[in-house]
Amino acid sequence: MTEKQHLLLIGAGLCGSLLALRMAQRGFQVTLVEKRPDLRDVTQDAGRSINLALSDRGLKGLRLAGVEEKALELCIPMLGRMIHDKEGNTFMSNYSGRDGEYINSISRPGLNMLLLDAAEAMPNVEIIFNKGCKSVDLENASAVFEDYTTKERTELKGDIILGTDGAGSVVRKSMFNDRNFLFSFSQDYLTHGYKEITIPASDSGGYRTEKGALHIWPRGEDMLIALPNLDGSFTVTLFLPYSNSDYCFDNLTTPEMVTEYFTKEYPDAVALMPNLVEEFFDNPTGPLGTIKCSPWNSYGKSLILGDAAHAIVPFYGQGMNASFEDVVVFDEILENQKDASIDWKKVFYEYEKARKHDTDAIADLAVDNFHEMKEHTASPLFQQKRKIEMILESQFPDVYSSKYSLVTFNENIGYAEALRKGRAQDKAILNLLDDKKISEADKPSEILNIVISETNAILHDDDVAFS
Amino acid sequence: MTEKQHLLLIGAGLCGSLLALRMAQRGFQVTLVEKRPDLRDVTQDAGRSINLALSDRGLKGLRLAGVEEKALELCIPMLGRMIHDKEGNTFMSNYSGRDGEYINSISRPGLNMLLLDAAEAMPNVEIIFNKGCKSVDLENASAVFEDYTTKERTELKGDIILGTDGAGSVVRKSMFNDRNFLFSFSQDYLTHGYKEITIPASDSGGYRTEKGALHIWPRGEDMLIALPNLDGSFTVTLFLPYSNSDYCFDNLTTPEMVTEYFTKEYPDAVALMPNLVEEFFDNPTGPLGTIKCSPWNSYGKSLILGDAAHAIVPFYGQGMNASFEDVVVFDEILENQKDASIDWKKVFYEYEKARKHDTDAIADLAVDNFHEMKEHTASPLFQQKRKIEMILESQFPDVYSSKYSLVTFNENIGYAEALRKGRAQDKAILNLLDDKKISEADKPSEILNIVISETNAILHDDDVAFS
Repeated sequence: MTEKQHLLLIGAGLCGSLLALRMAQRGFQVTLVEKRPDLRDVTQDAGRSINLALSDRGLKGLRLAGVEEKALELCIPMLGRMIHDKEGNTFMSNYSGRDGEYINSISRPGLNMLLLDAAEAMPNVEIIFNKGCKSVDLENASAVFEDYTTKERTELKGDIILGTDGAGSVVRKSMFNDRNFLFSFSQDYLTHGYKEITIPASDSGGYRTEKGALHIWPRGEDMLIALPNLDGSFTVTLFLPYSNSDYCFDNLTTPEMVTEYFTKEYPDAVALMPNLVEEFFDNPTGPLGTIKCSPWNSYGKSLILGDAAHAIVPFYGQGMNASFEDVVVFDEILENQKDASIDWKKVFYEYEKARKHDTDAIADLAVDNFHEMKEHTASPLFQQKRKIEMILESQFPDVYSSKYSLVTFNENIGYAEALRKGRAQDKAILNLLDDKKISEADKPSEILNIVISETNAILHDDDVAFS
Repeated sequence: MTEKQHLLLIGAGLCGSLLALRMAQRGFQVTLVEKRPDLRDVTQDAGRSINLALSDRGLKGLRLAGVEEKALELCIPMLGRMIHDKEGNTFMSNYSGRDGEYINSISRPGLNMLLLDAAEAMPNVEIIFNKGCKSVDLENASAVFEDYTTKERTELKGDIILGTDGAGSVVRKSMFNDRNFLFSFSQDYLTHGYKEITIPASDSGGYRTEKGALHIWPRGEDMLIALPNLDGSFTVTLFLPYSNSDYCFDNLTTPEMVTEYFTKEYPDAVALMPNLVEEFFDNPTGPLGTIKCSPWNSYGKSLILGDAAHAIVPFYGQGMNASFEDVVVFDEILENQKDASIDWKKVFYEYEKARKHDTDAIADLAVDNFHEMKEHTASPLFQQKRKIEMILESQFPDVYSSKYSLVTFNENIGYAEALRKGRAQDKAILNLLDDKKISEADKPSEILNIVISETNAILHDDDVAFS
């Protein structure tokens, strides 16, 4: 392969910096351009998501680029969901019945800095900060950038452009506005927005609540979650309807209303958030949207990856993991190219063909999980299902994986297959419980047999009807 | 109600002209602006869809405005699908087992002219042609129009704007570009395009093939369909992949290739299309897209309806019917307003709440039917299902309606319910056939009981799993 080609990467977030690193490792000349300042030099924007869930698919991408070990040093394992009811009672629901299956809370800027350091250490990577992409010439793989400070404009050109410029991607917008090809596109907003608030570390620097869990306060229509940070704090996120609800962003407009709402719904959390009201009004309210599109490439010259191609809502903790998995899949397609010179059009086509059904699936799973987290985690039938899944996973660790495990801990099957099988299993178990055909008191091997048999029947009936 | 308000309607296609007529009947002052010339004065664009399927939901809208009888004079009943195999054999598959349930082929320009005549006859309607909408001030219900000939620009203002400007809606694009609210939007293109060709009338002015049917030549990935016109001709539409297929628009680039493809796949149709090759290259290739969006209104001042809000693919023959049903639902919401003055924001909100789940459903059903028409109509299991449905509908006309009938002939239930129940019934019958639990030789009452029972079980299992 001619690996001397020049790749112009737009966007040095998590996906772009890992992709730059990996492409440099493959021998390409990489220019990575980022509109923001170098986050290693500045403090973070207030209100931006500051920790994320890192799990097996993401770790696989980091491993590919040789940075998994360093990333793990930044991780706090979260073994399960800690559910908080209105009275402040908690119970822990593990993510898996198997040992060693958990997700990690990791600092977004911390991980991004690690990846930038690793990319920058490569001799064939140039990173340019403070230059926002203003327009893209998709057919010629060139783009115009504006310097944040001087407003000076520069044109840069590569053999190809890889757009990793996130949910608001300028590269994707250029594709949307190009009338020479049909561009399927969707942006779907939830009726909810989100807002971040902090549980600070205790005076002694410790954690004010359980460190090793993802905390959830499910309240049906709205919820609060919290993930731990290395410094003893937690980042709390409120998910709340914008409007048309008793409490919503449209009517939480006074300190009294905010206090009333939190005290009523989340009394145990209120006690941990001394700056609640101040932060509520200081921090922005962010939207929750899903973006899907196709094709991901144009003219065989430009390709979008990561959030630029498939932004998802955060409820499965898979946004970053899916983006890192993009890098793995793209790398595999390149690895399998046998030609002397790279046919980028073919590479891009094969990449989308291999990948799109999986990113569509995780987008849908993430919306499912929104409803699961805010409502179902509080429902008795759902809690029974989780108990059955824990029994099956702990008793038959090599045989059974729940939908959550298929998505989160099984990086060798795709999201689409995890969705197909996982939804069928959920439907089987929920109906078997509802029909009193299984209970947690039954012999585990009997539960396993009936769940597998019912799952297969569901998949077969779907295949007959919809194939 | 204050019905002296001034409504500015943008787009005088089928939806806009029916809406103008009905709103005028309610007493509003209506200005209807259309970018094209008055189609009563000019010949039609070549290549545009020239006939459509009109069925019960559309007829209900026409009835509401008092123009059903006149429209029926333009109709040619189509009793079923006439399937053509590769050897030119045909078989008829009726749309319903009940008498009097059929769809109608109707001329799009003919119906549009009828509606324009009726609207224009109202003293409180002004129709302005040849003025294309260039920009919309959503908050102030005003818009700038450019005259097609003089390029002169005019601003028009109403108390509200109703955007009925079709799939390429300028009103919707203004909503998309407005950054003051979150606008969910999708445009999804099939990988197929379409092209229209003519089967002319015979020399004696008669029909060259069966008049009372919608003809289908299903070929798996591609298909041809034909609908009759009053003048003895048929409008034929080819649906074919753009690319990545043995035969596709990308490679049908010579008369020889076109002739080879049609002769191989549709020999009996080729014999009826003397101008096939000429028309193939003269007529444009059109895309097949679905558009969904929300909210349909902005600032309580502007609302989009019809294709502007929910363009769908043509495979259920419901595009126009859904648009006319929009007028019925919007009219009902207005009818139920009890306030002295109209709260448009509330009207628009209630309209979308009542309507959106149904237009989303017909969009999905129409894509389903694409696969059904091009593939399943040729499959033995599907054909057995249709036979079972015909038995049930003819034997139990008051009890049983197939998915097709629920969608097409049951205007008093919404598309969403037709989808939910219809898909469950399909799944039940296909699986009962596949499992040899029913056959067309069984006693009809036994078939009915087992199909109902299995359908209910499917709906119940779905409810337990996904509610």
